[in-house]
Amino acid sequence: MSIEQDYRPGLEGVIASETSLSFLDVDAEEIVIRGYDLIELAEEVSYLDVVGLLLDGKLPSHLERQAIEKDLKENADIPEAVMTILKALPKETHAMDALRTGISALAGFDSELDDRSKEANRHKAIRLLAKVPAVVANSYHLKMGRPPVEPRKDLSYSANFIYMITGTEPSESEVQAFDQSLMVYSEHEMPNSTFAARVIASTQSDIYGALTGSVASLKGTLHGGANEAVMKMLLEAGTVDQIEPLIMKKLQNKERIMGFGHRVYMKKMDPRAQLMKQALLKLAEEKGRHDLYEMCEIGEDVMRREKGLYPNLDYYAAPVYYLLNIPIDLYTPVFLAARTVGISAHVIEQHENNRLFRPRIRYTGPRNLHP
Amino acid sequence: MSIEQDYRPGLEGVIASETSLSFLDVDAEEIVIRGYDLIELAEEVSYLDVVGLLLDGKLPSHLERQAIEKDLKENADIPEAVMTILKALPKETHAMDALRTGISALAGFDSELDDRSKEANRHKAIRLLAKVPAVVANSYHLKMGRPPVEPRKDLSYSANFIYMITGTEPSESEVQAFDQSLMVYSEHEMPNSTFAARVIASTQSDIYGALTGSVASLKGTLHGGANEAVMKMLLEAGTVDQIEPLIMKKLQNKERIMGFGHRVYMKKMDPRAQLMKQALLKLAEEKGRHDLYEMCEIGEDVMRREKGLYPNLDYYAAPVYYLLNIPIDLYTPVFLAARTVGISAHVIEQHENNRLFRPRIRYTGPRNLHP
Repeated sequence: MSIEQDYRPGLEGVIASETSLSFLDVDAEEIVIRGYDLIELAEEVSYLDVVGLLLDGKLPSHLERQAIEKDLKENADIPEAVMTILKALPKETHAMDALRTGISALAGFDSELDDRSKEANRHKAIRLLAKVPAVVANSYHLKMGRPPVEPRKDLSYSANFIYMITGTEPSESEVQAFDQSLMVYSEHEMPNSTFAARVIASTQSDIYGALTGSVASLKGTLHGGANEAVMKMLLEAGTVDQIEPLIMKKLQNKERIMGFGHRVYMKKMDPRAQLMKQALLKLAEEKGRHDLYEMCEIGEDVMRREKGLYPNLDYYAAPVYYLLNIPIDLYTPVFLAARTVGISAHVIEQHENNRLFRPRIRYTGPRNLHP
Repeated sequence: MSIEQDYRPGLEGVIASETSLSFLDVDAEEIVIRGYDLIELAEEVSYLDVVGLLLDGKLPSHLERQAIEKDLKENADIPEAVMTILKALPKETHAMDALRTGISALAGFDSELDDRSKEANRHKAIRLLAKVPAVVANSYHLKMGRPPVEPRKDLSYSANFIYMITGTEPSESEVQAFDQSLMVYSEHEMPNSTFAARVIASTQSDIYGALTGSVASLKGTLHGGANEAVMKMLLEAGTVDQIEPLIMKKLQNKERIMGFGHRVYMKKMDPRAQLMKQALLKLAEEKGRHDLYEMCEIGEDVMRREKGLYPNLDYYAAPVYYLLNIPIDLYTPVFLAARTVGISAHVIEQHENNRLFRPRIRYTGPRNLHP
């Protein structure tokens, strides 16, 4: 093997895996999830259907969906010891670091941890999906010095997730908007966080370890943190008349405006952003916050006019989460929670047809030195 | 961009990064560390020199080495809250999962966490190098229901590491063997765990998160667990006359014999294994355990005769750790502790010249389905 081959910075354009889970069709600007258009799914079904589709390869029947819901409810509690761990973290801990620590600690409680069969991996994926909302919500409550919240088993998965964060039972339209956001965040081919999980899983390491790596990756400012940055900018502007001057000032100062542009969606708006924009309009009207919707639209127009850039998913998910009373610190953890199913499905696929990831490097240092 | 390109399973032969840190010269079967031959380094200098070389780009002067040692001692204590966290983990927790959780939790205590400058990253690397031995040792003591051990600041880095694990101050020759093992484990180009760290760091995520991913990767049975498997086999054989029959039986049953073969070292023995073999001989003679050395040599001969395979580093590091009274469960955590400096240096390099890792996939699923 010669290593005098092409160096591919960032592995751009390199095919690192085969997958039957999803595909970004760049030409059609379509997100394919096991054969379905993600946007059509998000309009027609709900998050637990997408969970079944990703984990089991087909949309669940009514009975199968009920079984998934029952499984998730039965596994929704997190061990007292994990609460102790989350409580012991210093108040300065970033929400993603708390989530990473909590997921890492959960590994020791899973009796099937070392079983990498498809069946055991599916069980572990369900347990993680069930418990991650409780880790997200309670790491925040404990950090704020509040008592932890128990999952409400009478609520749907998405309604309980909002309830655990806000302490308030959400309305039907709030649940619908949130559930749609979970669907559009659920799976997206091979972003860095999913790739990190597959790299880790390829050593035959377990799904908890792989997801820990994904949390670490998604925390990075070039990856998952954009939705938080968007909301901070909208709040900085504050009123409809201030958003255009603020963006113009930032552009003049060569600051990067988060929530715009995407390596894949170049010719039009990220279709997931379009869906979240509709959800935002509905929520904003119900809550008498049409001004927030208007601010976002003005920002969208300014960025298209000035930079030729379109909003991506984070741009419209952020104000939706804001109107759902989700604290800004939890936007990225919620993104990770929604993506847990996609990452789990990738780990299952990796373990089913594994090959250890082990690339080479191009050495640029000196040779033949002696101590 | 067309995605109808070559699929590279496991990224074999793909150049994923440039690095000035290390290079496996396959033809010469030499491990180059910033221009030096790793084996020559391991014979001539000690672990803290290699730490300086990897972090600062050159072998430290006497004064610089003293400064590194002082830094490490000043940062060797771990926060009480991390002890609480390690204590809260269930007894079933794998040692690598405990280490991952402890490192993940440490992030919240680092005031420079979000500073990705070279200087701040070096500070964080030193803090991690200083604290990882305490996390490794105390996660084990707490699991065993014993009180945690405080670092001894009057001992050298390597002597204190052994002391924290065993509770006993090691002899000079024990320290020397262990220090050499840390050097040969310190850095090795781009194995999966280092790649995982660079992938994660490329989102601008921090060094703690990247190292968390490395722990998860190294835990996998295709990566770091081999040294533990080797020792279990040697103990299963038990006596000099039983090792050959045991290996022959395992080969007949098509079981994989751990500690042999390497993707890179094919034509002769891994030079790191050769060095650890010498260290083992010395320790075995001192401790009246020449039988253990003899068993290893017989195993080596049998595998060369039967399979044409040579021992790798894990094969001879395992019995060295055994004679140092390190519990088998901690062999992989000690490997990770030694590699922390190499991984940290890769993260520093990644942040200095960053490009987000984002490969593509080949989609093998259906198209045009509708809900």
